Amino acid sequence: MPQLPHSSRPQLKVRRVSLDTGRENVVVISRHSKALRPDVFRGFSRVELRAGAKVLLATLLITDEDALVGPDEIGLSEPALRRFAEPVGSLVTVSPATSPQSLDAVRAKIEGRTLQPAEIEAIIGDLTHYRYSDMEIAAFLIGSARFMTSGELIALVQAMARAGTQLKWPDGIVVDKHCIGGIPGNRTSMIVVPIVAAHGLTIPKTSSRAITSPAGTADTMEILARVDVGVEEMKEIVAACRGCLVWGGHVNLSPADDILISVERPLCLDTREQMVASIMSKKLAAGSTHLLIDLPVGPTAKLTNATETMRLRKLFEFVGDHFGIAVEVIATDGRQPIGNGIGPVLEAEDVMAVLTNDAKAPADLREKSLRLAAHLLEYDPQLRGGSGYARARELLDSGAALRKMQDIIDAQGPSSCRNDVGKLTFDIAADADGRVCEIDCLQLNRLARIAGAPIDKGAGIRLFSKIGDRVEKGQPLYRIHTYDQSELDLAATAARVNNAYTVGDRYPASGGTAP
Amino acid sequence: MPQLPHSSRPQLKVRRVSLDTGRENVVVISRHSKALRPDVFRGFSRVELRAGAKVLLATLLITDEDALVGPDEIGLSEPALRRFAEPVGSLVTVSPATSPQSLDAVRAKIEGRTLQPAEIEAIIGDLTHYRYSDMEIAAFLIGSARFMTSGELIALVQAMARAGTQLKWPDGIVVDKHCIGGIPGNRTSMIVVPIVAAHGLTIPKTSSRAITSPAGTADTMEILARVDVGVEEMKEIVAACRGCLVWGGHVNLSPADDILISVERPLCLDTREQMVASIMSKKLAAGSTHLLIDLPVGPTAKLTNATETMRLRKLFEFVGDHFGIAVEVIATDGRQPIGNGIGPVLEAEDVMAVLTNDAKAPADLREKSLRLAAHLLEYDPQLRGGSGYARARELLDSGAALRKMQDIIDAQGPSSCRNDVGKLTFDIAADADGRVCEIDCLQLNRLARIAGAPIDKGAGIRLFSKIGDRVEKGQPLYRIHTYDQSELDLAATAARVNNAYTVGDRYPASGGTAP
Repeated sequence: MPQLPHSSRPQLKVRRVSLDTGRENVVVISRHSKALRPDVFRGFSRVELRAGAKVLLATLLITDEDALVGPDEIGLSEPALRRFAEPVGSLVTVSPATSPQSLDAVRAKIEGRTLQPAEIEAIIGDLTHYRYSDMEIAAFLIGSARFMTSGELIALVQAMARAGTQLKWPDGIVVDKHCIGGIPGNRTSMIVVPIVAAHGLTIPKTSSRAITSPAGTADTMEILARVDVGVEEMKEIVAACRGCLVWGGHVNLSPADDILISVERPLCLDTREQMVASIMSKKLAAGSTHLLIDLPVGPTAKLTNATETMRLRKLFEFVGDHFGIAVEVIATDGRQPIGNGIGPVLEAEDVMAVLTNDAKAPADLREKSLRLAAHLLEYDPQLRGGSGYARARELLDSGAALRKMQDIIDAQGPSSCRNDVGKLTFDIAADADGRVCEIDCLQLNRLARIAGAPIDKGAGIRLFSKIGDRVEKGQPLYRIHTYDQSELDLAATAARVNNAYTVGDRYPASGGTAP
Repeated sequence: MPQLPHSSRPQLKVRRVSLDTGRENVVVISRHSKALRPDVFRGFSRVELRAGAKVLLATLLITDEDALVGPDEIGLSEPALRRFAEPVGSLVTVSPATSPQSLDAVRAKIEGRTLQPAEIEAIIGDLTHYRYSDMEIAAFLIGSARFMTSGELIALVQAMARAGTQLKWPDGIVVDKHCIGGIPGNRTSMIVVPIVAAHGLTIPKTSSRAITSPAGTADTMEILARVDVGVEEMKEIVAACRGCLVWGGHVNLSPADDILISVERPLCLDTREQMVASIMSKKLAAGSTHLLIDLPVGPTAKLTNATETMRLRKLFEFVGDHFGIAVEVIATDGRQPIGNGIGPVLEAEDVMAVLTNDAKAPADLREKSLRLAAHLLEYDPQLRGGSGYARARELLDSGAALRKMQDIIDAQGPSSCRNDVGKLTFDIAADADGRVCEIDCLQLNRLARIAGAPIDKGAGIRLFSKIGDRVEKGQPLYRIHTYDQSELDLAATAARVNNAYTVGDRYPASGGTAP
């Protein structure tokens, strides 16, 4: 009598193998393994590990290095070992993996079919349980990049929000704000949250760390306080302070989003629908009832014209309406950085200068933060219509916002990260007399990253002039800060090759939209 | 003065690291490497290696295992080491890779833009030089899966054909045949080539090895002769014999196709345009002037209906006309296997039985081969119209085709591979009296692979009955052959779970198209 396939397979002993493979599950088998058949197992193919009822899908590497894995062993990389949760030394069987069934839906989407909500839910479920390889994730992203119906978008937001933590709050009004990013500096959340919380509205803000930029709000807040706060602690902080400024990564809101982003990034994919699904799934999971979306528009911003901006606005409003979230979308001036600092420490200095009403605080950051806070305050039914701005200014000028920020910092606890500005500097000077006509946001982001931000917290850029300012030849336009000479050399070279500033004699066009 | 970026980077010493990573370039760096910056280098990200003017793009793994690579070393996996062609111990710099510029065109395609020929040529060029990661290749395939204009298809075929060897032949007429695959057995090329060459037409046939099937023509021919023949030797064989039956892998026709297929396969992507580009680029590079395409149609074939078949036919004709290749496309009966053997040795037995005019030779394989050969012979201007079939039969019955096959085998030289039929067998019997109504080609392919084909050359299946045959309960329908007891157990179990034969009392529909 033929035996059952799995019982007849040889078993391999689990060992840890230290390979950083990003997010993907990877296992390593010896070429001399008793479990290996060259016709079914090839390098980079997908395999299925089984131990009792536990199953793990992983990408296979085959090695001749006995030091890495022996013939009766299977090496699991860090994420695979954690997710499989079998102790080192336990026995597993390995067989060629059957693709997750939801991949049939991915292929159908590639061929142009519209997917049903259940199919999208199955895809997100498999993806969240790490059953997709990076290539399979790319297939889903690209297959749905060109066309997604509104029904598919809603189903995607729903499935992504359900796949992780779903927060509930005791208050009827839970406000939030979100910027789609791309503008250096622009740390408005760290000013808006204390203003809004000081007023008494609930604003449990989770932020991301930088992915391709020199600083995310979580990176900048970490200069002032701990941000890796879990769900229960976050609830306590919000109960005490009405607001918080924590890193979303620890709260596990819409984990599928983090997985999708990890593949979108190397492929530089950036579609409207996926951006909206990413943001709205997190807000839905976060329990937000009222949401303000900031869309910066400018020649080097993510949005470059009014048509794109309008289409994106409509998409946010559509999804918000479907899920009963009051969404307000505003287009803002995205022609140049907001504030003077770029990089965690330098941005934190800007934020504290605004909150302390320092005379040298950047006026654009203060003004934009007040306007955004004003919109959020208007959600308070107690507040007289149109008085949001005045109330925001009152809370900032009186020091109430600063005191609230201090409460939040105390509640989140001290951060252990380095918080000194990089002492090594290099100034970039104007090459002619004239006015600053253009500032390239993409270049500044790139320079600040080359300087070491966000890993080197004090690395980055300080701006000395903004669009419209008169400058003289030789006058410093901005200063690069680093911790390290080799980073300074690299950043300085890059700044000279591609200058982020254009100085000329024409008068620059004003931003199409108020800050 | 700031230094140039590359000269200031620390250098690492090249070493070999034995990791089978499939086709992809992979390099391994120690987490304690002096060249590693965690903000720019992450696991599975892309890096660029430089040594003088040489550049290699690769996917990065980071490890803590000192046995694998030391802090001042960089480990290159086999394909990366071969392609970079720098000796072990030489010094290289490593930096984050900039994506190949042609990826902008891939992204444009994903967003729905039609690509220009120069853009497609750049994509295929980068792909052929291993500058794309698997994920980037997937992006190209999926981005162009849903829609490709006829202009894009032509540009793709052209670029793929130009990327590798381009064969030229002294003869004005160079014929070729190609089947899109999917039907077990069906080794017509090994009968058609000797018939056509015996007649005197030039037919330099290159074939693939099995990718997902239990045998390709190259695997089956290898039972009788060596097939890993290079370009120059192939030319000599064709000069001497008019024909050959060699493996295309050694001839390097359309190398981009092999790369694309290596990514299509794990994703199970299969689109018409890509299939046509794959086949036609190889034929264009092979210097074929007249081409016969065999499209098997049946419920478990690659094509299941007349509409699909017609569309594919038109696409082949369109591309053929553009490049001046006379293309004839015929739809054939794809309801069941052709011949009785499945797996290299068993199929080679069928072929030799037909060529030797053995009374037990499978009639369907003989008949289909004669009809295909007849089409090709009609390309000979000397032959009177309509007499192709009679001429083909004459060459087969007289033993001329057999003698030609023997010449080709002698010219290609002896094969060293094992050529005995698997002695361990298991018979699958009819579970009822009746007629064979259906045979599932996909199941038979799967079973033959589980039995060990094509790696175990003598493993596979021998069929005892075909559609329409009367069988009694308990009568063997087919026999599984293996070299090994554990493969026999697996295949027997799989055959019992999903029987490939349907026996019933209804009379089966005939194939819509003659064989």
